Formats: sequence, structure tokens, C-alpha cells
Amino acid sequence: MKLLRVGTAGAERPALLDGDGTLRDLSGVVADIDGALLADAAALGRVRAAADAGELPALDANGLRIGPPLGRIGKVVCIGLNFHDHAREAGAEPPAEPVVFLKAADTVVGPNDTVLVPRGSVKTDWEVELAVVIGRTARYLETDEDALAHVAGYTIAHDVSEREFQIERGGTWDKGKNCETFNPLGPWLVTADEVPDPQDLSLRLWVNGELRQDGSTAQQIFPVAEVVRYVSRFMTLYPGDVINTGTPAGVAMGQPEPKPYLRSGDVVELEIEGLGRQRQQLKEA
Amino acid sequence: MKLLRVGTAGAERPALLDGDGTLRDLSGVVADIDGALLADAAALGRVRAAADAGELPALDANGLRIGPPLGRIGKVVCIGLNFHDHAREAGAEPPAEPVVFLKAADTVVGPNDTVLVPRGSVKTDWEVELAVVIGRTARYLETDEDALAHVAGYTIAHDVSEREFQIERGGTWDKGKNCETFNPLGPWLVTADEVPDPQDLSLRLWVNGELRQDGSTAQQIFPVAEVVRYVSRFMTLYPGDVINTGTPAGVAMGQPEPKPYLRSGDVVELEIEGLGRQRQQLKEA
Repeated sequence: MKLLRVGTAGAERPALLDGDGTLRDLSGVVADIDGALLADAAALGRVRAAADAGELPALDANGLRIGPPLGRIGKVVCIGLNFHDHAREAGAEPPAEPVVFLKAADTVVGPNDTVLVPRGSVKTDWEVELAVVIGRTARYLETDEDALAHVAGYTIAHDVSEREFQIERGGTWDKGKNCETFNPLGPWLVTADEVPDPQDLSLRLWVNGELRQDGSTAQQIFPVAEVVRYVSRFMTLYPGDVINTGTPAGVAMGQPEPKPYLRSGDVVELEIEGLGRQRQQLKEA
Repeated sequence: MKLLRVGTAGAERPALLDGDGTLRDLSGVVADIDGALLADAAALGRVRAAADAGELPALDANGLRIGPPLGRIGKVVCIGLNFHDHAREAGAEPPAEPVVFLKAADTVVGPNDTVLVPRGSVKTDWEVELAVVIGRTARYLETDEDALAHVAGYTIAHDVSEREFQIERGGTWDKGKNCETFNPLGPWLVTADEVPDPQDLSLRLWVNGELRQDGSTAQQIFPVAEVVRYVSRFMTLYPGDVINTGTPAGVAMGQPEPKPYLRSGDVVELEIEGLGRQRQQLKEA
């Protein structure tokens, strides 16, 4: 299923995109798309049954804002330098084990919402990433198979990053990863049963129409199953948590000078095979 | 006012500790102690009026668990190396600007709850810290005075840290800061009007009865007002967010070998002047 949330920010209603591309209202079946729903097999079953029976009313998608496909997100765990080519362009060795950092859930916005260039920023950068949505509480997982059984689905994350704040201002990366609007998410949460191989998805990102990132999750140093298993040893993952699994090469930081960092007015588009497309315009904070 | 939350985990009710040390039930006046309450001057005024009028029923504190003094925490922002003596014992230079990292809100537990030593951990360490609770949305604050006007109150945080995960496993500190139960918080949220000078509070921590940390917020490199102002340039702070403002010297990592890292059965007690006391027993995860 393709689950999503539509409407004004903070007042989104749950919806489903059906096989014909018609938007269907889920608000008569579930209260929201969130961790509680993803952990509730019976409720998910009701959604599926209602969809299969054709009982869900159509929604007019015209002019309707798409919100993040998940409400009440707990935390966003991020994996850094998870593609060989991106580690190379960042001037880093491929990590021996996953590099982990955090984004606060309050950085999450809809897939087509405005992204704000922070005040004083001169190095706002882009990163297309496969986002994993957790469906069951995960702690100390032992096998890759068990790890994948804790994944509810997948979506697209734009892990917007301010490189000066991240790297040149002392301390950890978090300072350049948590500016407001820095994590567009969506458009849909595609349930795991419809993503047979998360290691075979193409990821692409354009800036002002120019293709800048063009990779595949096949190139991930640590695949999704290993990432989920690894992270579960250091922190407990809860239903509704999100893991951004890293970006391929092609970010602004990796380009020759003058590096094409994002400015107000720029348009970024992101696409992952089978997971839809995002489009954000940049504005000044 | 001293605001707190009592009862079983996940089902705490709001309460107030009055000037006589009597616990008072607030559940007839407000639904919870959270960011929404702290941002609502009228609701806080009702709490204060009901307390002053002696209208709040007494609660039997006997055997009652104290939860974290704040529900629905958004994010926990942490300031690293914020005391000269702690930077020295950590082998680091005093930072030129605040070092910022994050803890997920799901690490927060009550002040006397069990703390779990992660599986495979051999370097679980303690850190007593003054925690700042945000009461108003803070972005791009310009003055220290304005920064303090965004602080709703103060409490104690135990910023439990696994040093191997934090420092020796690649990547950022977050990996050693986000294990489950790693942020005991409380016992009370003391409103800012009752903390006339946040830079004149003694902080102490004992392990198994032995005094290990004994500092004062007077020694902070970046005081509370500067921390709030600084952080607001990099991320938006929302009502109900928490900032752990750093720990003084005396952590296990700073001791001679064999360093006395925490083990199952150890008891840690923490105290900050005017903010109460915590006590946790360590157990295996």
C-alpha cells in the first residue's frame, strides 16, 4: 500500500493512493498514519480490506498539500557516509561500521514544502536518501531477517545539510542537520511488502532541473537490514521512528569550486524508484 | 512552582510540590505538564491561583513513582564539554563555541527509574547536568535577556553516556548517548521565577555513596542564556524541548585506570541546589 497524509500542516488526514493512482480517504478507517497504526496488524488489515473492497471514498487531489507520510515521529536516525562514492567525495575513508547521527522529528516537513536556507548559511546542501520506517519495537536484533521484519515501509527523505554548521563549527554533525525544514519526507509510505528488494532502488536528485545525484541503494556500504540491526544495539527503535540510510555521490560539497550550494529560489527534485517524487523550493529563513 | 508528574510510566498525572513539601494533585486543573502547558500563560496562571488558594487536593506520596517532569518532550539538545575542568579531564581543548549533540526524547525516564547498562557495554559513565526546559518557540534569538525569557524552568538531567560507543565506534557522539533509559530527568520542573540565577547552582553526583562530581554552574564556559541563544541559530527550539547544559569534572572517563565505569547494581545519586535529587540503580539491559 501507498499510505500518505494530506491537508494543511499539523491537520493532515490519512489517505491511500490506490493502484489506479486515485487518492482515497482513510479518515473513516484510521485516525492517522503513525507508529501506533504501523504496529497494529489488525488496523493495517482493516485498511487493506477497505481498499480491496473499494470502500474508500475518493479525494480530490487537486491543490491538496501532501504532508509527511507519518505523524508523531519519534526520532530520525541517520547513517552517514554510507555510499563509497559519497565517502570519497567527502574526503573520508569508508567507515568500518555505520556512522550514526540524529535529526529531531521537528525538522520533518512535507515532500513539497518550502525548505528554508538558515540565516547566515552559505553551505546549504542536498542529500537524497532512502528512509526506512520502523513498525515494531527493535532492540538488540540479531539477524538481518529479523531486522527487515521490523521495517513497516519505505519513503524518501531529503537530508538537507548545512556543511559549515556540520563540519566547521565544532562538535558533532547535528548542528548542521537540525535546522528547521531540513527533513522533507514522503510523498508516500510504501509498505515493505511492495518493496521486495530495498537494495535495488535507484535514487536521483536534480537542482534547478540539472541531475546532481544518480545512484542506487545497491551501492550502500551497509544495507538496510544491517543498518537496522546495528542501530538496534545502540538505541531502541520504536514504531514510527525513521532511519535515513545515507546518500550517494553528487552533493554540492563534493563539486569543484565554486561549489553550487543552495540559495533562495533554487528548486530541488528527488526521486526514488517506486517511492515517488519530491519537489522543494528554497527560501530564506 | 515545583511541577512534577507521578504514577506509572506512560500514565503519569500532573502534580505540584507545595511550599510545605506536600504533594498536590493538578489533574483537576491541567491535563499534563508539557510544552503546551508551559507555552500557555493563562493555564499556568490557573495552576498558580489554585495552589495559592489551597484548592489542590493532597496526594499520598508514599510509594508513588515520580516520572519525568515533562510529557511529550520534543527533543533533548545537549551541550558537550561546557566546563573547563571536564574538557580537561576529557583531554579536549575548551571549545570556541558550544558543542551540540542530540538525545532522542525516548531516552528520558523518571529520576529514580532503573538505568540499563547496554549489552556489550564496558564504559557506561555518569554526568550530572542542569537541564533547561523551553517554554516559548525560540528561533534566531539575539540577546541573552530574550533567551532567558524563552526558558520555562529547570530540572536535573543525568546524561548517561557509553564512552566506547560515543568515541571509539566511529561517527558522532550520538551512538553513545541514546541507549534506552540514558536520560533520567527530574524530579521537578522548577519554574524560572524560582531560579533567580541559573549560573549559581551547585551540582553533585555520588556513585555508591562516594562523591564523584562536585561543581557549580558558575563554572560553565557557555552560560544558560548564551546556550539558548546560540542553539536557536541552528535549530528551532519548541515548548517542551530540553537542553542539557553540560557536566563538570569527575566522570569515570576522567579517572585513573582502572576507570570506575558503571556496572549492574551500582547506585548513582544526583543533586542540584534547589532542584531536588535523583537516585538510580543500574541493571543489565
